[in-house]
Amino acid sequence: MNEGKPFQQALGLRCQCLVIQAPDDLRVVEQAVGELAPGEVMVQVGFGGICGSDLHYFHAGGFGTVRIKRPMILGHEVAGTVMAVADDVQRVKPGDRVAVNPSRPCAVCVYCLEGLPNQCLDMRFYGSAMRDPHVEGAFRNLLVCDATQCEPVAGGVLLQHAALAEPLSVALHGVSRAGSLLGKRVLVSGCGPIGALAVAAARVHGAAEITAVDLTDETLTVARAMGADVTVNVATDTDWVQRYAADGRTRKGTFDVMFECSGNERALRAGLDTMRPRGIVVQLGLGGDVSIPQNMVVGKELSICGSFRFHAEFALAVRLINEGRVDMRPMVTGAFPLSRAREAFELASDRTKAMKVLLDFAAEIA
Amino acid sequence: MNEGKPFQQALGLRCQCLVIQAPDDLRVVEQAVGELAPGEVMVQVGFGGICGSDLHYFHAGGFGTVRIKRPMILGHEVAGTVMAVADDVQRVKPGDRVAVNPSRPCAVCVYCLEGLPNQCLDMRFYGSAMRDPHVEGAFRNLLVCDATQCEPVAGGVLLQHAALAEPLSVALHGVSRAGSLLGKRVLVSGCGPIGALAVAAARVHGAAEITAVDLTDETLTVARAMGADVTVNVATDTDWVQRYAADGRTRKGTFDVMFECSGNERALRAGLDTMRPRGIVVQLGLGGDVSIPQNMVVGKELSICGSFRFHAEFALAVRLINEGRVDMRPMVTGAFPLSRAREAFELASDRTKAMKVLLDFAAEIA
Amino acid sequence: MNEGKPFQQALGLRCQCLVIQAPDDLRVVEQAVGELAPGEVMVQVGFGGICGSDLHYFHAGGFGTVRIKRPMILGHEVAGTVMAVADDVQRVKPGDRVAVNPSRPCAVCVYCLEGLPNQCLDMRFYGSAMRDPHVEGAFRNLLVCDATQCEPVAGGVLLQHAALAEPLSVALHGVSRAGSLLGKRVLVSGCGPIGALAVAAARVHGAAEITAVDLTDETLTVARAMGADVTVNVATDTDWVQRYAADGRTRKGTFDVMFECSGNERALRAGLDTMRPRGIVVQLGLGGDVSIPQNMVVGKELSICGSFRFHAEFALAVRLINEGRVDMRPMVTGAFPLSRAREAFELASDRTKAMKVLLDFAAEIA
Amino acid sequence: MNEGKPFQQALGLRCQCLVIQAPDDLRVVEQAVGELAPGEVMVQVGFGGICGSDLHYFHAGGFGTVRIKRPMILGHEVAGTVMAVADDVQRVKPGDRVAVNPSRPCAVCVYCLEGLPNQCLDMRFYGSAMRDPHVEGAFRNLLVCDATQCEPVAGGVLLQHAALAEPLSVALHGVSRAGSLLGKRVLVSGCGPIGALAVAAARVHGAAEITAVDLTDETLTVARAMGADVTVNVATDTDWVQRYAADGRTRKGTFDVMFECSGNERALRAGLDTMRPRGIVVQLGLGGDVSIPQNMVVGKELSICGSFRFHAEFALAVRLINEGRVDMRPMVTGAFPLSRAREAFELASDRTKAMKVLLDFAAEIA
Repeated sequence: MNEGKPFQQALGLRCQCLVIQAPDDLRVVEQAVGELAPGEVMVQVGFGGICGSDLHYFHAGGFGTVRIKRPMILGHEVAGTVMAVADDVQRVKPGDRVAVNPSRPCAVCVYCLEGLPNQCLDMRFYGSAMRDPHVEGAFRNLLVCDATQCEPVAGGVLLQHAALAEPLSVALHGVSRAGSLLGKRVLVSGCGPIGALAVAAARVHGAAEITAVDLTDETLTVARAMGADVTVNVATDTDWVQRYAADGRTRKGTFDVMFECSGNERALRAGLDTMRPRGIVVQLGLGGDVSIPQNMVVGKELSICGSFRFHAEFALAVRLINEGRVDMRPMVTGAFPLSRAREAFELASDRTKAMKVLLDFAAEIA
Repeated sequence: MNEGKPFQQALGLRCQCLVIQAPDDLRVVEQAVGELAPGEVMVQVGFGGICGSDLHYFHAGGFGTVRIKRPMILGHEVAGTVMAVADDVQRVKPGDRVAVNPSRPCAVCVYCLEGLPNQCLDMRFYGSAMRDPHVEGAFRNLLVCDATQCEPVAGGVLLQHAALAEPLSVALHGVSRAGSLLGKRVLVSGCGPIGALAVAAARVHGAAEITAVDLTDETLTVARAMGADVTVNVATDTDWVQRYAADGRTRKGTFDVMFECSGNERALRAGLDTMRPRGIVVQLGLGGDVSIPQNMVVGKELSICGSFRFHAEFALAVRLINEGRVDMRPMVTGAFPLSRAREAFELASDRTKAMKVLLDFAAEIA
Repeated sequence: MNEGKPFQQALGLRCQCLVIQAPDDLRVVEQAVGELAPGEVMVQVGFGGICGSDLHYFHAGGFGTVRIKRPMILGHEVAGTVMAVADDVQRVKPGDRVAVNPSRPCAVCVYCLEGLPNQCLDMRFYGSAMRDPHVEGAFRNLLVCDATQCEPVAGGVLLQHAALAEPLSVALHGVSRAGSLLGKRVLVSGCGPIGALAVAAARVHGAAEITAVDLTDETLTVARAMGADVTVNVATDTDWVQRYAADGRTRKGTFDVMFECSGNERALRAGLDTMRPRGIVVQLGLGGDVSIPQNMVVGKELSICGSFRFHAEFALAVRLINEGRVDMRPMVTGAFPLSRAREAFELASDRTKAMKVLLDFAAEIA
Repeated sequence: MNEGKPFQQALGLRCQCLVIQAPDDLRVVEQAVGELAPGEVMVQVGFGGICGSDLHYFHAGGFGTVRIKRPMILGHEVAGTVMAVADDVQRVKPGDRVAVNPSRPCAVCVYCLEGLPNQCLDMRFYGSAMRDPHVEGAFRNLLVCDATQCEPVAGGVLLQHAALAEPLSVALHGVSRAGSLLGKRVLVSGCGPIGALAVAAARVHGAAEITAVDLTDETLTVARAMGADVTVNVATDTDWVQRYAADGRTRKGTFDVMFECSGNERALRAGLDTMRPRGIVVQLGLGGDVSIPQNMVVGKELSICGSFRFHAEFALAVRLINEGRVDMRPMVTGAFPLSRAREAFELASDRTKAMKVLLDFAAEIA
């Protein structure tokens, strides 16, 4: 601990964790909190956002080939307050409020040394069953992490907003894959949390015009609040593809850049129709096999570019939230105490009712 | 005509044209040769290469939504000798041997003014049924074209090699879509004419290592002759994907760049498996709908980029042939007089026997 | 004229023009207004911004090798109201308020066809003595121009703000030269009108942090109002270079991107010291010969990239002003009637008193 | 040592080193050879190329702010034969011939983790006085280095050619800074060793046409042998700038890319005149302050990009030499035994007589 700091790590300190035991089996489990190693800090977690991958573990035990083989603490979108720091830590001090970066690349593999840490061969990403043993998550009221994972949250910023730095990072990484958006007409396809944040990220980075499409009016309302200029409910506006595919001036399509956030084949195909020659589709949404019209990709010389997680974008995300350049208020549907986690997960699963649902780790403790 | 030039355009000059009348119905049709307008030249065509699209018209009347609605002269890969030039032409003179660029963008549409003439809204590409009335092709012994379409062929270069400047341009455009190949490991998938020329184009542009894959040994032999370092017959070497997908050092795949020239779904999917994170797939081959593993595109952050036709690359292609930097000899299977066009088309359709088959327009006339 | 339009072009219509007769000799000259050719419109100019090049003509008869050889109408930053349109014009109608793009590339030269119209070999840019006969400018109360030069101004936007679309375009073009600003720390050097608008353009396009430097507090106040996070008066804060050159984390410099808007050698050299390895300096300011430390450019692998005029950015500039994404209010120092043009030019020449000074062409006519 | 290997490191093994004691004071010094730590190998150095920086230490004790403060072993361009390897080494084995990468970045600093190891904050580059204590060089007959520094040399390749992998890497890094050279007209300015190798590197990477300029015919002869299409002796051909500056078609200049390898102000300025709009100047040569015409950089939107050292390019350089894609024969002026090092350095300093002069470390020992 830092000298002179009032807080002392109590022997036998314990925390409450949200564990996925098996599909549809969420449990709150108590666990000992470890001692701080050099460079580490202890964070009293304030809020944690429920992500799509958390929902996949909850409903189906995973997605694709990623499946839980044993119980795992969920969660990777958290912010809280530093309670204690190891003696050598300068970056933060007790009392600081921080967003916690859940991405922990190894910093020694070939990808880390190429500046692609999101492709790290030995990534330990919170709450992920990609490797076995699984990497435990951050849905717990006390979390020990590296100081370097902590980005300070500005005064006046709510922790439930800071907790959303992680999905904003994902969206920002998507924007970085598209190159400059100066003068670009942008389509955001799928307006769940990542799509809505892609709207915000594209707006901050100068997109000339942002059109957001989804199947529900509720998500489109949020997309507008996050900065979309135009929204289209593709469930009811069945002409939309034709309209944007045959734009008067360019005749081959309208959009320069598409952020595909649904992972849905029909959404991707419809979007391809509306893209301008040389348009860039950034694929953020995960799906399985999807069928694409190869002749159109060739004929219009489209690019489909995958975007996976993030790295440097996490600090940027916190900065944008700190400075009020991204306003997270429209994103938050509500927050539930840990004891009502199941309720929170069920609400989060209903896209007509929920954008981002959070767990409030301090609710019952305080 | 240029003053003092010995040749005078005879009234009533006629030429022999190869017309696709209907699927499986090729005819040699005689047609009047028009007078030279300002800027135009008359070329005595020497050789014309048979392209995949010519074969599609021959066998099926077209491809995708592009179908012949009326008879059309085929052909867009030709080289010949200038016979006469309009008075105002400086670029070439009678006697010059030239490769003829079959791409004629409008130079006034929004894409032409953006430097993307291959996306021209009013393209008149030789021998194409994309528009109606169709654009007549260049398989004829006398061709009137713009002087600006003519690129001089160096002394000592065979016209049958110069005629292949067009497919080489297609390959070069594909290379331009990939960015710099410095230090890159390249996969070429599908070693028909475009694939074999993609090998050559990648070699000229510095690919560190080129691996070519195909289903037949015959095409792979040509690929090696065009510069491939490694060839894999994927029909017999069934481990190849696994081998390159799990490269020891990078563990997520081997190739930085793939030129997909087959248009085949299985080839594309196999290639994706072998790509390194952030790899670029340049899609040159045309197919229909293809299924791709979206999670892999996202997870490895791959880019799939369409490449369509060419523009500035035509002059470059002729230069590379002129300077011997691309040796076309391995590409040429044989040449047939116009009267044996059907035989030529049938041979060209058999990938185990033919790489590039040409028509020899001077064979029976001289 | 469009049928049914109330306005009819009177025979003998005349306009008042601001002419630079010789250095230090500004005159208001009356001139006949031509008839509308197809595609043309007549604009009643509202306001015109005085640019640095106007000031150079005024004070010194030009700059570098560009010198007035005969009297020339000045001005290229104007906005006004459409009075009449040729019969074939659809783009705008009488009564529309428009910003007028002063850049008129030829659309047929090699650069126009490469998508680089700002490099046009036959550019006719308003109020420029680069060619002889000079291209007359737009400082006149009635201006006949092509409809395609007109970008509609939204209701509620002041014409004096719309007139600044041109210098904003210059700044936006500079931003386009830098590539994506996502996560980038930006230095703006020289906070005259272009520098202040570069701050705004970088802010709209997502710069993480903008530091503006200048020699006067007055300009820095405007830079802050336009979006600078930090401002440094380099006349008084003599440590600034050292501070940013030896940033704790990167040790080789702080800034990823610099917009050099002063054209001053010392400003450029100081900025180079503060750049991070691989940093990009976009040079917007014009000067003469400047001395640069070659070893530093090599050692830190910096890029110095020129930025000249604009093209597609003009429509974007008007859009950003129309949507309130760039607030021009801090830019405007004041507006003077044409009869007080000399006073306006003198004020505009005093950087401690003036940011952007405009001519108000309607002031005395109305 | 690897088990079963015949060679055993003798106690008390000593090597001969070439030390710069003070300006103009070269000495051969005997020094003990250390034991092999894990991961290390012992290389019997065959040849070492004398580089411009070696000459600067010899003549002037350094360059710019880099000065020898104490004696230092020179040299960083070496190739040799592996004599022994530590037990854990798999990469090479005794008997292998290798080129040794003199660049040893730290792999943990911010730049290393961004994929910019050539900007490493803790670089230990052989034979460099940039840091103090200086980093000892590789001009010695026995060298202990990391196995990862060793790139195997193919059978049949001469070690004196393999020793030039390092300057070729510098040239390749320059090419990587320029982006794709497809279709590009390239100017190489200054045809000393780096310039001549830049010619070769540009040729391998597809430059359409390479023009090399220098002040001496001798270097231009080598440039042609390395692949230049056109050479210009700018000492005698005084019209060359005007000729290329006013190219008929583009009128604003000829070259798309320039590799400036002289570090000379006049060469840079002349080159800028001949560049096409949007041209890229890669600055490889080191000089002091140079004066550039800012208005031309702005007006033609040129980019001047520094290029410093290399990283991944070293393996590529060895590959290109191994495969005969770069023929080093024209580069080698001669080789001298260590005892005649002064003679070698003096010859290397005379650009009319020498391209690359090597030290032959085996000459007198064997």
